[in-house]
Amino acid sequence: MSETALQNATIPFDGRVQSGVEQPPQALLEMLGLNLKPEVDKAGLIELMQELTPTARQLTQGNPIPNFLAPEMVAVTANLTITCGFGERIFDLIERPDLKPEGLHAIPGFKRDLLQDRWGQSDLVFQICCDDPGTLFAAGRLLLEKCRDKATLKWMQKGFTYAYGSAPRGTTPRNPFGQVDGTINPDNEQEFKEQVWLDGEGETAYLDGSSIMVLRRIENFLDPWELLDRDARERVIGRKLSDGGPLSGGGEHDEEDMEAKDAEGNYLIDRRSHLALSREHEEDGSDVLRRRAYAYDDAPEPGQSDLTNSGLVWVSFQRNPDKQFTVIQKRLDAHDLLNKFVSHIGSAVYWIVPGTTADSYWGQGLLEK
Amino acid sequence: MSETALQNATIPFDGRVQSGVEQPPQALLEMLGLNLKPEVDKAGLIELMQELTPTARQLTQGNPIPNFLAPEMVAVTANLTITCGFGERIFDLIERPDLKPEGLHAIPGFKRDLLQDRWGQSDLVFQICCDDPGTLFAAGRLLLEKCRDKATLKWMQKGFTYAYGSAPRGTTPRNPFGQVDGTINPDNEQEFKEQVWLDGEGETAYLDGSSIMVLRRIENFLDPWELLDRDARERVIGRKLSDGGPLSGGGEHDEEDMEAKDAEGNYLIDRRSHLALSREHEEDGSDVLRRRAYAYDDAPEPGQSDLTNSGLVWVSFQRNPDKQFTVIQKRLDAHDLLNKFVSHIGSAVYWIVPGTTADSYWGQGLLEK
Repeated sequence: MSETALQNATIPFDGRVQSGVEQPPQALLEMLGLNLKPEVDKAGLIELMQELTPTARQLTQGNPIPNFLAPEMVAVTANLTITCGFGERIFDLIERPDLKPEGLHAIPGFKRDLLQDRWGQSDLVFQICCDDPGTLFAAGRLLLEKCRDKATLKWMQKGFTYAYGSAPRGTTPRNPFGQVDGTINPDNEQEFKEQVWLDGEGETAYLDGSSIMVLRRIENFLDPWELLDRDARERVIGRKLSDGGPLSGGGEHDEEDMEAKDAEGNYLIDRRSHLALSREHEEDGSDVLRRRAYAYDDAPEPGQSDLTNSGLVWVSFQRNPDKQFTVIQKRLDAHDLLNKFVSHIGSAVYWIVPGTTADSYWGQGLLEK
Repeated sequence: MSETALQNATIPFDGRVQSGVEQPPQALLEMLGLNLKPEVDKAGLIELMQELTPTARQLTQGNPIPNFLAPEMVAVTANLTITCGFGERIFDLIERPDLKPEGLHAIPGFKRDLLQDRWGQSDLVFQICCDDPGTLFAAGRLLLEKCRDKATLKWMQKGFTYAYGSAPRGTTPRNPFGQVDGTINPDNEQEFKEQVWLDGEGETAYLDGSSIMVLRRIENFLDPWELLDRDARERVIGRKLSDGGPLSGGGEHDEEDMEAKDAEGNYLIDRRSHLALSREHEEDGSDVLRRRAYAYDDAPEPGQSDLTNSGLVWVSFQRNPDKQFTVIQKRLDAHDLLNKFVSHIGSAVYWIVPGTTADSYWGQGLLEK
């Protein structure tokens, strides 16, 4: 890596599936949630996608963008990816609710949820990830500008993980609590196929190469957290703080031994720890998913209790949230030792449209069906 | 640079002057403005500085911090710097208003200012700069936690410029308008001595190695800006968008020729351009300073007119704002072509305390005088 190794680093845009899902997270996230204006119909949405797809393609590949007057702002590509998703309402708007993929609906409420509408569902989502903050900004601005006539911004959520150059790419992030968080993840083609990507042919060809994103905004309360000692912190997550290895022994990627006990006969990994409840429990191993979470740290809000305003822009991808996210979250909501320190304040679900080719646009298979 | 070149990259902490002033800007900024609680007196401030200085030293050097339970969060140093400044009120608090350095007071109001108190003066400032966002977050959190008993956060301002690896270190940043902005800057020891660092001995020894920061929050209105064509954008700044070279010809660091004219006899560099008005006009060349600005891009605020909420956390360092920042800004305020597109919404001035040694603390020369 030279001092300008990131300058022209690109991740391919076209393919069966969109980028920004399988790739290890870049340093920075800008997630944009937009609502279509009331007058925008199916034809308007098609126009918008026909405009945005080539723009995103050129941005991510470092190619010229017609009529864009600030090309210097995006000259650094820095592994930029732009990933597009549709909220459930799009299927109603185009009068094809019958085509909704399974599980594309609001996540059922959990008893500990404290959801705020301002972080809630939108019609469209654009997940922009990049290793350079200036390019991230300019790409987000350009997309918003191109959406201006047809959509309004509902929210922007920024997030971060390791800078490129500060840890080997693919290092599991630490959350704001300092825990190695997100170890269990698909890591080969077969696992992505089983957990993440929908397939389809014939009548369901429009689904082929798509996925479903569950986006949660999870506030982290550091004030009470920091009152815990190291042992208590590790018990809550079930992993060592040092390297993320399970408390039953071994390194981060070693299998946990849920039956291991200490000399007094106590389980080394608490049954209510985040690790114990996050790992799959279903016999068929279906309750697993792709985690791609980012931390956030925004300016404190007036009147908030914690010193800092931080947490996770928690992003996941899966074939069907009903069988994946929701099954896992139900366990966490009921028992997770971490619950005392977190609050789910935002929730949204999107159909991540299939990848494109140079002559197709986002969602074309659905919109022209 | 290896894939982990940033991991242990450090900038020295101790010395005659603080770090975070002369060094080219790291990728990310977190600026914290804090007010002392009403009950905190001089003794309390000394205690706070005695606590914070070694913490900042260890954070920036990657050394262990006593009683800190999340060392993994700051294991990546990534060129972290932490720079401390005192607002004018500190001199009144310690009952030594006679010791205020020249120019340490609120910047006089300009006719175009639209200042908001929420971005205004505070008692203390900590400028945290880093190439890794996680370390930036954890360092800021730890400082806030250590301030908790004695001070409250007035504001947090985050900013960004090129990521490490996306441009050679020291590349002049582009502002949100895409302009190369900040070319004219001291770049050798002599210029820093003349423009930035105060010296002192005997009765004024407490000033030796200090400086004065002027911090302005400058909102950038991209909606009207983007209506301009490339020529108009360049005329406003007086520099080419491509490489920042002056419109009179040459590259970014070539001297501008203010007398150069086109075939019709018009000046190539408009007298009201940002370049023309920013450059020194005083005969003794005193109206120059150290610019170290960052861009910001926050979530839009309810009811704002522009699509994005962006601008500059504009940071400068100088010996005396009365003769430097204020002289320049008076010209800009009166005539700058850029004025239509920007609004100064925050202003604060701080005495940047001298550097430390391993057995001294921030502001000791003043506080023990």
